[in-house]
Amino acid sequence: MQNKSQGSIFVRIHAPWQVLAREAEFLKIKVPTKKEMYEIKAGGSIAKKFNAILQKLSSPLQPRVPEHSNNKMKNLSYPFSREKMYLYNIQEKDTFFDNATRSRIVHEILKRTACSRANNTMGINSLIANNIYEAAYPLHDGEYDSTGEDMNDRKLLYQEWARYGVFYKFQPIDLIRKYFGEKIGLYFAWLGLYTSFLIPSSVIGVIVFLYGCATIEEDIPSREMCDHQNSFTMCPLCDKSCDYWNLSSACGTARASHLFDNPATVFFSIFMALWATMFLENWKRLQMRLGYFWDLTGIEEEEVSSEHSRPEYETKVREKMLKGSNKSVVQKLEASTPEDDEDDEDKLTWKDRFPGYLMNFASILFMIALTFSIVFGVIVYRITTAAALSLNKATRSNVRVTVTATAVIINLVVILILDEIYGALSREWGCSFSVPKTEQTFEERLILKAFLLKFVNAYSPIFYVAFFKGRFVGRPGSYVYVFDGYRMEEAMCAPGGCLMELCIQLSIIMLGKQLIQNNIFEIGVPKLKKLFRKLKDETEPGETNSAHSKHPEQWDLDYSLEPYTGLTPEYMEMIIQFGFVTLFVASFPLAPVFALLNNVIEVRLDAKKFVTELRRPDAVRTKDIGIWFDILSGIGKFSVISNAFVIAITSDFIPRLVYQYSYSHNGTLHGFVNHTLSFFNVSQLKEGTQPENSHFDQEVQFCRFKDYREPPWAPNPYEFSKQYWSVLSARLAFVIIFQNLVMFLSVLVDWMIPDIPTDISEQIKKEKSLLVDFFLKEEHEK
Amino acid sequence: MQNKSQGSIFVRIHAPWQVLAREAEFLKIKVPTKKEMYEIKAGGSIAKKFNAILQKLSSPLQPRVPEHSNNKMKNLSYPFSREKMYLYNIQEKDTFFDNATRSRIVHEILKRTACSRANNTMGINSLIANNIYEAAYPLHDGEYDSTGEDMNDRKLLYQEWARYGVFYKFQPIDLIRKYFGEKIGLYFAWLGLYTSFLIPSSVIGVIVFLYGCATIEEDIPSREMCDHQNSFTMCPLCDKSCDYWNLSSACGTARASHLFDNPATVFFSIFMALWATMFLENWKRLQMRLGYFWDLTGIEEEEVSSEHSRPEYETKVREKMLKGSNKSVVQKLEASTPEDDEDDEDKLTWKDRFPGYLMNFASILFMIALTFSIVFGVIVYRITTAAALSLNKATRSNVRVTVTATAVIINLVVILILDEIYGALSREWGCSFSVPKTEQTFEERLILKAFLLKFVNAYSPIFYVAFFKGRFVGRPGSYVYVFDGYRMEEAMCAPGGCLMELCIQLSIIMLGKQLIQNNIFEIGVPKLKKLFRKLKDETEPGETNSAHSKHPEQWDLDYSLEPYTGLTPEYMEMIIQFGFVTLFVASFPLAPVFALLNNVIEVRLDAKKFVTELRRPDAVRTKDIGIWFDILSGIGKFSVISNAFVIAITSDFIPRLVYQYSYSHNGTLHGFVNHTLSFFNVSQLKEGTQPENSHFDQEVQFCRFKDYREPPWAPNPYEFSKQYWSVLSARLAFVIIFQNLVMFLSVLVDWMIPDIPTDISEQIKKEKSLLVDFFLKEEHEK
Repeated sequence: MQNKSQGSIFVRIHAPWQVLAREAEFLKIKVPTKKEMYEIKAGGSIAKKFNAILQKLSSPLQPRVPEHSNNKMKNLSYPFSREKMYLYNIQEKDTFFDNATRSRIVHEILKRTACSRANNTMGINSLIANNIYEAAYPLHDGEYDSTGEDMNDRKLLYQEWARYGVFYKFQPIDLIRKYFGEKIGLYFAWLGLYTSFLIPSSVIGVIVFLYGCATIEEDIPSREMCDHQNSFTMCPLCDKSCDYWNLSSACGTARASHLFDNPATVFFSIFMALWATMFLENWKRLQMRLGYFWDLTGIEEEEVSSEHSRPEYETKVREKMLKGSNKSVVQKLEASTPEDDEDDEDKLTWKDRFPGYLMNFASILFMIALTFSIVFGVIVYRITTAAALSLNKATRSNVRVTVTATAVIINLVVILILDEIYGALSREWGCSFSVPKTEQTFEERLILKAFLLKFVNAYSPIFYVAFFKGRFVGRPGSYVYVFDGYRMEEAMCAPGGCLMELCIQLSIIMLGKQLIQNNIFEIGVPKLKKLFRKLKDETEPGETNSAHSKHPEQWDLDYSLEPYTGLTPEYMEMIIQFGFVTLFVASFPLAPVFALLNNVIEVRLDAKKFVTELRRPDAVRTKDIGIWFDILSGIGKFSVISNAFVIAITSDFIPRLVYQYSYSHNGTLHGFVNHTLSFFNVSQLKEGTQPENSHFDQEVQFCRFKDYREPPWAPNPYEFSKQYWSVLSARLAFVIIFQNLVMFLSVLVDWMIPDIPTDISEQIKKEKSLLVDFFLKEEHEK
Repeated sequence: MQNKSQGSIFVRIHAPWQVLAREAEFLKIKVPTKKEMYEIKAGGSIAKKFNAILQKLSSPLQPRVPEHSNNKMKNLSYPFSREKMYLYNIQEKDTFFDNATRSRIVHEILKRTACSRANNTMGINSLIANNIYEAAYPLHDGEYDSTGEDMNDRKLLYQEWARYGVFYKFQPIDLIRKYFGEKIGLYFAWLGLYTSFLIPSSVIGVIVFLYGCATIEEDIPSREMCDHQNSFTMCPLCDKSCDYWNLSSACGTARASHLFDNPATVFFSIFMALWATMFLENWKRLQMRLGYFWDLTGIEEEEVSSEHSRPEYETKVREKMLKGSNKSVVQKLEASTPEDDEDDEDKLTWKDRFPGYLMNFASILFMIALTFSIVFGVIVYRITTAAALSLNKATRSNVRVTVTATAVIINLVVILILDEIYGALSREWGCSFSVPKTEQTFEERLILKAFLLKFVNAYSPIFYVAFFKGRFVGRPGSYVYVFDGYRMEEAMCAPGGCLMELCIQLSIIMLGKQLIQNNIFEIGVPKLKKLFRKLKDETEPGETNSAHSKHPEQWDLDYSLEPYTGLTPEYMEMIIQFGFVTLFVASFPLAPVFALLNNVIEVRLDAKKFVTELRRPDAVRTKDIGIWFDILSGIGKFSVISNAFVIAITSDFIPRLVYQYSYSHNGTLHGFVNHTLSFFNVSQLKEGTQPENSHFDQEVQFCRFKDYREPPWAPNPYEFSKQYWSVLSARLAFVIIFQNLVMFLSVLVDWMIPDIPTDISEQIKKEKSLLVDFFLKEEHEK
C-alpha cells in the first residue's frame, strides 16, 4: 500500500518455483527440453557458402550481443508440464524461466487474483484503476549507464541498440524480446523490416526523380510552354485586377512539374503497390519465423488475449446491478462463480450499450466534420486572402506564393494540433462511452477509431488538392462564385498542373509532420516533463532526497521513470507515414527517401525511450501485430486506387498519351499544349470582370484557358468537346486497367510467396517428428 | 496378400487398446472427459423462446437421428493422454474411440509402417501403388437395406439422408461426420449451407424476373421498337443476299431482352456480390462452429496434413539415387534416418523438378489453347454456315435460329467432353510430371490446375458472347472480313442486344451441363459400371459365386463397391456452378433458381453414392475445406468485375441512363432508339455488297445501324461521335464506381460479421476456464 503524503511504499513480489511451475503449465509456456540443440538448415552448399560470405560482409552491421552468435541453433521445446519434468534440463530453478517470463507469470497472477474485500473487483488493474495502488511494474535489470564492468541486458541494449551511434547496425531482436517481451519485440522487428524495405524503394524513387531531371530538356510540352514564339494569350486568372498573361511566364512551374509528372512515375507507382504487398508478405514470413524461434507457433488466439474484463466494464456492471437491486446484491456478488455467468444481469445488454455506441459514433462524426470544416476554412482563407491581397498593388506580384505558403503552414499546424488532441481524446474518453468487455476488443476499437481520425486529419487537405482542387472553377465567362462574389480562382491549380501543387503540399506536410513530431513531441516534451518532475522533487524535499543520497534501489529509480502506455502511438505514427509513402507516391517519388531518413532516427529514438525513459513494460506474449496488419493491408489496397486516380486525373499522363496516339500528326507531343487550351471570346466576358487597364501589348480577341471545350465559333460554344470525352474515357479506362492489373499482380505476389517460409515449415515438421522420437526414448528410459 | 487368379485374400486389421491409446496420444485426439455435459448457451430469454418455436416448426424437417436430440449439450474434451486416464470416462475400452477414429488410427499406423524388405517404401500407400496390395479400406457398418430391426449407422444414414424421399429434411451432419470423418462431413455441411443460401437468392432472382415481366409494357425503348409507325430502315445484315429490314421486325427479341436488361438486374447483381461475401462469411462461421463441436479447434495445420511423402515422390528419389550411385545405395537407404534428411541427394532439387514443371506448364497451356481454339472454331462454324445457308433461299428464313441453336449445342457437347477429358487427364498424368513432396501440396496443385482448365472450358464461350461478340464487326461500308470474304456478320448480336444472347448461351450451357452431367455421368455411368462388373463376375464363375451364395462377409460386399477417389469432382462441380450463379448473374437472374433445383437433387445423389455405392472412405480429419475456400472467394471477387462489365458494356443500362439525363428533351426514354442508331448513306456501300433484288417497298437513301457514329453529312463521317465517347465515359465510370462500391461493401460485410460466432468464442473461453477448474479438482482428489 502506498501513501503519497508519507512517501511511496513499495511491495516487491517474488514468485517461488512451485508457483512458477504451476502457472507455466496453465499458460502452456513452451520451454526448451533436454534434447540437444540442432542446427537450422541453411539450404544447399552454394547457399551455405553465399550465406557465409554474406555473414562476413555484414559482421560490422551485427550488434555485438552474445545471443546473436548461435543464431542457427534452437532447442527443441515443449509446453511445460510438471508431470514431464524429466524432459527439461533444469539446472537452476531460479533462472529456468527467464526474466520476462517470470514477470509475465507474476503479472498474470496479479491480474486474476480476486480482491474480494475491496470493491469486489478482479485483479491488479482494477486496484490501480481505483487508485488503491498507484502502479505495478516489473523492475529493470539495472542501470544502463553504470560505468562498472558488470553487464546486464539493459546496459547491453543501450550500448548495442539504443544509441544514435549504432544507427547502421541491425537490431538485436532476440535480446529485445527477451528483455521486453514478444509484443515489443515484434514492434521493433516490424519497424526494422519496414525501414529496410524503404531502402530499395528510396533508391528507385531517387532514380525516378533523376530520370525526371535528366529528361527535363527533352520534354516537348514544357519546351513548347517555355517557347516565347508560341505566345498563348491566357485568360485572366481573377476578375478586374488580373491581366491577360502569356503562357510562357509559367515556364518554370511547367518544367518543375515534369520532374514528377513523367512516365517513370507510373511505373514507380505500380512498383510501390507491389512493394507494399511484398512488404506485407515478408512481414508475415518474418512473423512466422520469429514465432518459430520464440516458440509462439502453438499458442492460440484465446490464450494470448487477456480474458479478464476491463475494470471499467466491471464498474458499469456493478452500477447496473446496484440499480436493479430487486435481488440481494451482496448475494449476487458472492455467487458470481462462472456457472451463473449466463444470467442476464451479469452482462451489459444491447440496451445498456446503445447510448455509448451512439455517443461514440456522434463524437467521431463530429471530429471528422471538424477536420473537414478546417480544411474548408483554409480554402476559404485562400480565396478571401487572395482577393484581398490582389486589390493592393504592392502585394499583388507575390499573391500566389504568399497565399499558398501560409495556407500549407496553417494546414500543417492544424494537423499537428488536431493529431495531439485526437490522440489524447481517444485515449481519455473515447473509451468511456462504449464499454467492450475485454481488453483486446477495447484496444482494437480504440485503434480503429484513432486511426480513422488521424487518417482523415492527415490526408484530407491532400485529397482535396489531388482530386477536387481546380475541378469546380467553371470556365471564363461563367466562373463559379462563392460568398457573393469571391471567385474560386484560388481553387484553380497553378499553370503547371495540380500535380505540382499536390507534390508541394505532400512534401511540406510529410516533412513538417515528421520533423516537428519527432523533435518537439518525442524529444522535447519528455525532456520538459523530466525537468518539471525534477523541479517538483526539489520543491518537495523529504525522504526522496535521502533516498537519492544513498544508493537508490531499483524500484525507486524505475518509479521515477514514465509509465509505459502501450505501442499505439508508435505504430500509429509509422502507419500514417506508410500512407504518405504509398497513397500518393505517384505525385511524390521522393517520399520513401524522407521516410527512410526519418525511420533510421525513429528506431533509435524509440529504442532510447524504451531503454532509458520508460518503466519496464510487462512482457506481453503475442504472435502477431494484430489489427495493425489489417490497417496496413487496407492502406496498401487503397493506395492502388488512389494512385490510379492520381495518375489518371491529376497528372497529364493520359492526355499526353491520347494526344500522341490519336490527335498528333506525327506521333510526337508537338502541339500538345495548343491542343489542351480552349478558346474564349473576350467580348463574352461578363460586365465588370474584364481586366482593368490592361497592359497587354496586343489587341486581345480570343484568350485561351486550359480545358477541352468547343471553340466560340462552334454551333454549341463552350460545351465539352469530343476531345474532353475521349480523354475522359481514356482516363477512366486507365483507372480500371491500372487498378485491376495491380490488384491481380498483388494477389499473384501474395500467392507466390508462401506465408510460412519453406525452411521454417520443414523445421516445424521435423521438430514434431523429433519430439515424438524423443518422447518414445524418454519413456523407454523411465 | 492377395492373388487375383486364386481369388482375393483379405487381411483384417484390428487395433488393440494399447495401440489405440498410444496413437491417440500422439495424434492428440481430443476425447470427452468425465466432466458433466454442460448446456450451450442460447442467448437471452426472448431468443430462447424464439428458438423453441423455431425448433417446433422445423421438427418435421429434422432428420430422426438419435444424436440430433441433444444438440445443445457438449462434453468437455481434452487431448487423450495415457497419464491422465483419470480424466476420461472410460466404460468400455472397445468403444471408447468411435468407429471413424479407430479406422483413422489404423490407417495412420499402416501409412507410416516401413516395409523395409519390399522396395524400401513407407506405408500402405506405396504398397498399393506398387500393386502388392490391391486396396485398403475400413469396413462399412453393415448393410444399408437389410430388412431386420438391427439398426446401424449406415442404415440410419440411408433412411434419413441418402434417399430422395427425404429431400426436404436437414442433413444429419453429426452422424455423417461420425460415419465418414470430418472431411466428408465438412463437404456436406458446405453443400447444405450453399443450397440453403441459394433459397433467398432464388426468391429475389424470381422477383427480379417477374419485375421484368411486369414492366415489359412500360418499357419505352421496346415499345418504340415495336411501333410500326417509327419505321427505322436498318442496313442489311449480310452482303448481297440480305435485304434492308425494318427495326420493328426485331420487336420480339427487344421485348424479351427487357426481361433481363432492366434496372432491377443492377441491384440484383449488387445483391449477389454481397450474397457471395455473406455466404463465405457464414461458411467460415459454420466451419468454426462445427470445428468447435467436433473438437477440431486445437489442431494445427501440420497435424492434419499427412506428413508422409507420396509414393511417386519416393520412387523418383529412389531412381535418382540409383542413377547417381557413387555412394553405396544400400548403405544410403539403410541410413535414412531423419537426421541426414539434409543431404541433397535425398531430395529432388530444382534441376530434377524443372522438366516436370515445364511439361506441366506446357500441357496446361496446350489444353487452354485447345479450348480457345474450339471456341474460335465454333465461331468460324457460325460464320461459314450462316454464309452457306443464306445462299440457299429455302433455308434463309431461319438461318439465325439454326446457326445459334447448333452452335450452342456444339459448345455444350464440347464442354462436356473436354470436362471429362480434363478431369481424367489431370487425375492421371497431370501429376506425374511435377513431383511435389507431400500429399497436400500435391492435391492443392492438382485442384488448381483442374480448376483452371474447367473454368476456361466452361466459361470461355460465355466470355466471348459477353465481352467480344459484336465488337469487331466494323460498320456498314467497311465491315471486317475474315477468311477472304466471310463477313463477321454472325459475330454481330441479334437486334435485341448481346445480353439476350448471353442469357440464352448461359442458360443452355448451365442447364445442359447440370442435367447431362447429373443424369448421365453421375447416375448412368456408375450403373453401367455395376452392370459391367456383374457381367464380368458371371463370366468368371469361381469361388466368388460360392461366397455370394453363402452369407457374404462385409469385406466381400465392400470390395465389390467402387473405391472412394476423393471429393475433388464433387467440389469442382459445385464451384463451377457457383461461377454460373455469380459471374454473370446480371444477365441471367434465374441462375440461382436452377442451381437450387439442381442442388436439392445433388445432395441426395452424393449422399446415396457415399452410403451405397462407395467403399467406406478413411476418416480424414481436417478443420477447413482448404483451397476450395480460396477458389470460392476468388470467384466471388472476380464476379464483381465481370458483373460490372456485363452491366456497363453488354447491357443497355448505361446508354439509357445517359440518354435520359443528358440528351432527352423531357427526361424520358422517348427517342432513345433513334438516338442509338447511326445513319449510313447506302450509296457508299461497296460494290458487290448491295442487296440483290431488294424487295424493300421504299426507295432507301439512308439506312440505320446500331452505333454512335457521325452521320454521313458531318465533316468527318462515320467517325465515333461525341455521344460515343460520353457513353463510353459513363460506362467506364460505372465500372469503377460499381467495382469499388461493391468491393467496399464486401469488405464491410466481411468485417461486420465476426469469423467466430460470439456464442462459440464465449463457449471456448468458458470451456478453457472449466478445464482449468476441472484439472485442479481432479488433481486435488488424486
